[in-house]
Amino acid sequence: MKKMINGVESVLEESLNGFAKAHQDIIVLNHQPHYVTRKAPVKGSKVALISGGGSGHEPLHTGLVGKGMLDAACPGQIFTSPTPDQMMMAAQQVENGAGVLFIVKNYAGDVMNFEIAAEMLDCAHETVLVSDDVSLPKDHSTGRRGVAGTLIVEKIVGAAAEAGADLATCKALGDKVANATASMGVALSSCTVPALGKPTFDIGDNEIEMGVGIHGERGREPMDLSSASEMVEHLATAINKELMPTSGQKILLHVNGFGATPLMELYLVYDLAAQFFAERGVEVSRSLVGNFTTSLDMAGCSITVTLLDDELIQYWDAPVHTAALRWGC
Amino acid sequence: MKKMINGVESVLEESLNGFAKAHQDIIVLNHQPHYVTRKAPVKGSKVALISGGGSGHEPLHTGLVGKGMLDAACPGQIFTSPTPDQMMMAAQQVENGAGVLFIVKNYAGDVMNFEIAAEMLDCAHETVLVSDDVSLPKDHSTGRRGVAGTLIVEKIVGAAAEAGADLATCKALGDKVANATASMGVALSSCTVPALGKPTFDIGDNEIEMGVGIHGERGREPMDLSSASEMVEHLATAINKELMPTSGQKILLHVNGFGATPLMELYLVYDLAAQFFAERGVEVSRSLVGNFTTSLDMAGCSITVTLLDDELIQYWDAPVHTAALRWGC
Repeated sequence: MKKMINGVESVLEESLNGFAKAHQDIIVLNHQPHYVTRKAPVKGSKVALISGGGSGHEPLHTGLVGKGMLDAACPGQIFTSPTPDQMMMAAQQVENGAGVLFIVKNYAGDVMNFEIAAEMLDCAHETVLVSDDVSLPKDHSTGRRGVAGTLIVEKIVGAAAEAGADLATCKALGDKVANATASMGVALSSCTVPALGKPTFDIGDNEIEMGVGIHGERGREPMDLSSASEMVEHLATAINKELMPTSGQKILLHVNGFGATPLMELYLVYDLAAQFFAERGVEVSRSLVGNFTTSLDMAGCSITVTLLDDELIQYWDAPVHTAALRWGC
Repeated sequence: MKKMINGVESVLEESLNGFAKAHQDIIVLNHQPHYVTRKAPVKGSKVALISGGGSGHEPLHTGLVGKGMLDAACPGQIFTSPTPDQMMMAAQQVENGAGVLFIVKNYAGDVMNFEIAAEMLDCAHETVLVSDDVSLPKDHSTGRRGVAGTLIVEKIVGAAAEAGADLATCKALGDKVANATASMGVALSSCTVPALGKPTFDIGDNEIEMGVGIHGERGREPMDLSSASEMVEHLATAINKELMPTSGQKILLHVNGFGATPLMELYLVYDLAAQFFAERGVEVSRSLVGNFTTSLDMAGCSITVTLLDDELIQYWDAPVHTAALRWGC
């Protein structure tokens, strides 16, 4: 295993320290337990938006804390759910009278621990569950995984909360965005978790993992290495089948790198995906290309589509100031 | 070779098309020859800032075109200098009476082709040469390579040009920033150029390439794989020896990923580098962490330091609106 680390035990702590130093104008890092909060809390009452999950997906979620987005994020160990005390203490710190909204990716550990934290809270709270990965069937036993669409939920609900929306409105909006969002990914290589020291899964020199999860979960089917056009056709067809956008529908198109794929390739994939939807009369009206929901050093990418309406566009465009997303500020 | 591409011949064209679609609010792509210009040119006279170089380093330089930074960028084929007609035609399009400043990374092909373009221009022009890679001795036969410090030159001179500085002032400022900047990188893996189809250089499972260039040029010395602390000590010591910041000196600290290294590791490296300089009484006053001057899918990172004064800080903080850097807009 080749990594720029000092030891398996200290990776998370050292990395968070660097993140906190580099972005001390935006966030504050709490130790024991770990959570990151906005440096400049909103004056007056505002719904507190909190997310979290295993580390290794950076900039998700710590890089999305700040004005117009999350109030706090709870990083777990790599690919491991954060613990309920992280969420509860983060909530106690950032809640200021308007309640707490948890935004949770659908994984058993995350769901359970956020539920435990919610039960311990003595303030109003709601949870938005994100399960946008269409590589699994809708009736899969544990539900579909939450992947790169989570960022879109956080951005849009973050803007609404910043504008003063109440808890019920934020919860309904989060569910609306989650339901209007679908994602699917493909891996060209595995990732290597430091504590494991070897690749999470085996993949042949001429194989790709179609429908891979963001922890290197095996996908729908291993496939032969194909052209970018064929890969995009596969991903976009699955997303299109799920969302069934009609002609004239506006969408947000997000191409997300898993960590080890050059930006050149991500833009190439974006071009092909944009063509796919344009050919169906769908209007790509907003876009985001880059490494946002990563899987350590996995090569590959995911495509995410959100069906937009005027409300969602307005919130997407609203000012945001975080480590990873910034505009209008 | 595993890449999300459709063919070696079409990578650049397809990738640029995706880039242009994704950022159509900021830039315009010209074909035959390829160059990218600002969508909203400045009204009135302004020094035109133009950079360029081989592709494969994205977001450098195309992702740095926009308000407060470059007026145009000329992408060559992967790791190959752009041609003089690209630079000349880009210059003719964006020059508006205040002259042209070329910002050029020190590689023989880039230097020669920018010189040829300059000779063909019938307007005032100057060139800032960036050679910030301290892995080579100062008296190296072809001079030192230009690497991640180029972005810092482009940001600071871009802000000055936007504020109305004339050509001589922009040229002097560019030289000042270039002289105040030093970089060095380390690779954990090679990159793979599509046209070559195999890794650019061999590297053992327990080896790192200290002082590597952004095209995978072999470094100072192959070294045994070591801890992040040892790698950072090596890089930062070389930079420190070059710039010799005194106690109380303010610096910009930039940790740049080469493309395949997780953000977690880049922040960990940032933490260690910030400690290194803090221990010497140097004040890390501005920072930038992420993948900006990449080498396709190479694993590893570089550290760049710029000695700051009030003028440079003011220009660094000035508004910028490009695909890759955005604040204050």
